Amino acid sequence: MAEHVVLIGGKWRAAKAVSTFQAVNPDTNEPLPDTYPVSAWDDCDAALEAAAEAADILRRTDPERIALFLERFADRLDARKNELVEQAHLETALPRSPRLADVELPRTTGQLRQAAAAAREGSWALPTIDTKMNIRSMLAPIGPVAVFGPNNFPFAFNGAAGGDFAAAIAAGNPVIAKGHPSHPGTSRMLAEEALSAVAQTGLPAATVQMVYRIKPDSGLRLASDPRMGAIAFTGSRSAGVALKGAADKVGKPIYLEMSSVNPVLILPGALAERGAKVAEEFSGSCLIGGGQFCTNPGLVLLIAGDATERFIAAAKAAFDAATPPALLSADVARSLAESVKTLRKSGAQLVTDSDVATPAGRHPNTLLRVTGEQFLADPEKLQTEAFGASSLLVVARDAGEAARAIDCLEGNLTGCIYSDSGGADEELYAQLAPRLRLRVGRLLNDKMPTGVAVSPGMNHGGPFPATGHPGFTAVGIPAALRRFGALHSYDNVRSERLPAPLRDANPNGRMWRLIDGEWTRASCNAVRG
Amino acid sequence: MAEHVVLIGGKWRAAKAVSTFQAVNPDTNEPLPDTYPVSAWDDCDAALEAAAEAADILRRTDPERIALFLERFADRLDARKNELVEQAHLETALPRSPRLADVELPRTTGQLRQAAAAAREGSWALPTIDTKMNIRSMLAPIGPVAVFGPNNFPFAFNGAAGGDFAAAIAAGNPVIAKGHPSHPGTSRMLAEEALSAVAQTGLPAATVQMVYRIKPDSGLRLASDPRMGAIAFTGSRSAGVALKGAADKVGKPIYLEMSSVNPVLILPGALAERGAKVAEEFSGSCLIGGGQFCTNPGLVLLIAGDATERFIAAAKAAFDAATPPALLSADVARSLAESVKTLRKSGAQLVTDSDVATPAGRHPNTLLRVTGEQFLADPEKLQTEAFGASSLLVVARDAGEAARAIDCLEGNLTGCIYSDSGGADEELYAQLAPRLRLRVGRLLNDKMPTGVAVSPGMNHGGPFPATGHPGFTAVGIPAALRRFGALHSYDNVRSERLPAPLRDANPNGRMWRLIDGEWTRASCNAVRG
Repeated sequence: MAEHVVLIGGKWRAAKAVSTFQAVNPDTNEPLPDTYPVSAWDDCDAALEAAAEAADILRRTDPERIALFLERFADRLDARKNELVEQAHLETALPRSPRLADVELPRTTGQLRQAAAAAREGSWALPTIDTKMNIRSMLAPIGPVAVFGPNNFPFAFNGAAGGDFAAAIAAGNPVIAKGHPSHPGTSRMLAEEALSAVAQTGLPAATVQMVYRIKPDSGLRLASDPRMGAIAFTGSRSAGVALKGAADKVGKPIYLEMSSVNPVLILPGALAERGAKVAEEFSGSCLIGGGQFCTNPGLVLLIAGDATERFIAAAKAAFDAATPPALLSADVARSLAESVKTLRKSGAQLVTDSDVATPAGRHPNTLLRVTGEQFLADPEKLQTEAFGASSLLVVARDAGEAARAIDCLEGNLTGCIYSDSGGADEELYAQLAPRLRLRVGRLLNDKMPTGVAVSPGMNHGGPFPATGHPGFTAVGIPAALRRFGALHSYDNVRSERLPAPLRDANPNGRMWRLIDGEWTRASCNAVRG
Repeated sequence: MAEHVVLIGGKWRAAKAVSTFQAVNPDTNEPLPDTYPVSAWDDCDAALEAAAEAADILRRTDPERIALFLERFADRLDARKNELVEQAHLETALPRSPRLADVELPRTTGQLRQAAAAAREGSWALPTIDTKMNIRSMLAPIGPVAVFGPNNFPFAFNGAAGGDFAAAIAAGNPVIAKGHPSHPGTSRMLAEEALSAVAQTGLPAATVQMVYRIKPDSGLRLASDPRMGAIAFTGSRSAGVALKGAADKVGKPIYLEMSSVNPVLILPGALAERGAKVAEEFSGSCLIGGGQFCTNPGLVLLIAGDATERFIAAAKAAFDAATPPALLSADVARSLAESVKTLRKSGAQLVTDSDVATPAGRHPNTLLRVTGEQFLADPEKLQTEAFGASSLLVVARDAGEAARAIDCLEGNLTGCIYSDSGGADEELYAQLAPRLRLRVGRLLNDKMPTGVAVSPGMNHGGPFPATGHPGFTAVGIPAALRRFGALHSYDNVRSERLPAPLRDANPNGRMWRLIDGEWTRASCNAVRG
């Protein structure tokens, strides 16, 4: 049984701990042997001090070196794959394969490598040059970034290796990772590899730091500290909103990915054409990974009719047939049961078998239903996120009621519309899609929301309370990097004093720059001449 | 004596007023004859309702029509120029010429025309297409925008015609203008022309609405209303921070331009080479327009020496020689006197003649000085913004003390560095510029900050408390438009259902789009083929 240390200022060292904790194996509900510290504010303070120094050095560091770090780090994760997968499986009960080994770890290293490419190329910073006025601007590193990782992606959204981490580093900032307490061992291994890659590539030692767990008041203090550049958070709405309040008060940019029920609208033509297939897609998307996805389809909007009843029966059969997996933690199981209770109290009727006995730390796969009228009577409660394999079917009487239900939706990450592959649903689509569009970050057609591709066109974001600002995405490169940039304008600044991306010559021949209104990879003279 | 009406839902109609007010002629300190309403919440509520409807129509409106509106509006302002200038002069005491007629009004119409060009071309929205995954994104209209205009630019930052207005409309959103109560007549005329241009170009009637004055609690309610898309505010820190708190709590994006002392660092080589010229530039920049600019050089950092004393003497002479103009309002005069008092209480010593008698509504041109040591002992108070022709000279003992003073600066819109035109100051520049860079939105060389060119490379923004988020600019097209866009991603959405900028074909042949990592004006097939 090891007692673990924290990573501060380039060293693994004993924490200033207020207490310790152990992770729990969700499969057995037994605590895992290692103990980890709950850090006092002193650890955050020391990390901030070191991060501020590292930020100063990183600003002057060739992006090529930052890119090399990200790639070296990815290579090291690949090399330690088996051990990482084993540890993450122990701490999360997520399947080794395909989930951890074949999907999530490759996604994580893929993100790191895409971020490396973006850092190397430099176009993410939107370098903009007005040659006539000699006024030039670009996004520059914003300063130390605290990344609060969630419980449900031990690799891909981990504070020490995930998407926010990759974006913050690629934009030239050091990261203070707050590991999620449900998988401290995984976070430790990731941070170990990050530190080795830092050393190998000669980045400042405090480029990556990590604490395992901090008290809520330390979190608020961290988010509002003058040395902080920005904060990235993925997790619950209550914790996110509290951090947002602290950061907003002192004007620190904070990017949040909080709750979302991800409405799926299934139009009658799609049900008539391929209802069974849609039911299968929906069940697959909602049940995968125990439904523990921020883009889990938690609300399905249907219009009453026989095809809808057949869809519900098919989905029920799939939900009842699937064995509920161990959830990420006892907390997740508790919170899921709580949410289902809230939904039922608000009139939702259980569709799936209620009396399935599940061992501790599991929860029956759950489908609930309400009428459109019921939903409209209590839309707030009936949008309670039930994080897990649970979905609420809202059966509207007609298109008008469906429209009113959509108008009641809070901000969501995604919204899906299934429709007839011919023209049968076009009128309904035209009526309903514009309403749904305003309430979601990503609108999908004929596709479930659980895949979040790392594509330049992705928006893993959306209106509050899905996030804190509808203009930013947490996934997708280059856009995700721009969250961690401050706009720096240079007015009449002498050429040799400009950062390389803003000088006349294109610094690497590949960088896209907006020169006098034209996006180009050419140098300024070439544009002017 | 007219009693004026508000512009709501396309109609000038009687306000639901809680009281009335009159503007004051700052030259005479006499109230102007017309009375204007202080609107009750009902007016805001009605404006929001109409704006929400207008927003729905604007989303479906061809950007060409929006561009035509902005151009028609600019033409109408040109046509009414004499009357506008006369009214603005009456209400602000700013000179008719060159300021109002030859600088500010042309700037205003220029902004409207640049915004029109950006709306028509469409590249501002960063249309991004991943053809392989068929995931596409762009910034889309964010919804109704409330624009709170400041007192110091009756045209160029007016809620009904200024930069925020132009950017919000060009991005496809209706505007609810909150006119500044110091120039209601000017705001009324601008809104009249806007409404006529709306009618001429067939935009929804509520595209532009205006109230003259609202109670603070109505402002907070407006900023946090569910129907609101975003808020733009230019004005005092206290009002801005209060609005920010209300908007942040419900996740509404708010863009603020608040206080800034705009530090100017003058290096010894510049003083040795051209001290008299620099003193002249500084005095000119600080005295112009009664110093009532958000980019007024309110803090000058110098290193002790004879050349510095000569600089101070020359600046003093210029300040003493200039006649203080009438300020924008009695409030401005009061607040300036208050700020100067605060600075003096914190140890600043008066350099200019203290006993100049000024009529009511004016204030002596003021230079103050402190040592670097004094500044470091009370940096917060000594950064009190003195809005007007006032500046604090901080005379540091040496470069080290200057560096520490820079490290104490709050976030500012601008920072200037004057240096020897040869290499004499390079070492100092290298030591001090990176520190100043982090504290300002725009870094200038050998140039005073008061000109804010409408350039794509401009950043009229900066770290808190100069603004609320360091990634955005209030001036400069296309970037200023992006504040008023929500990121909309389309995943597997059928081609004919996509917005035109995201279909394969370039919608106008001129739009820049990021297709598979390349910025191009070509259509998708052309890129793929």
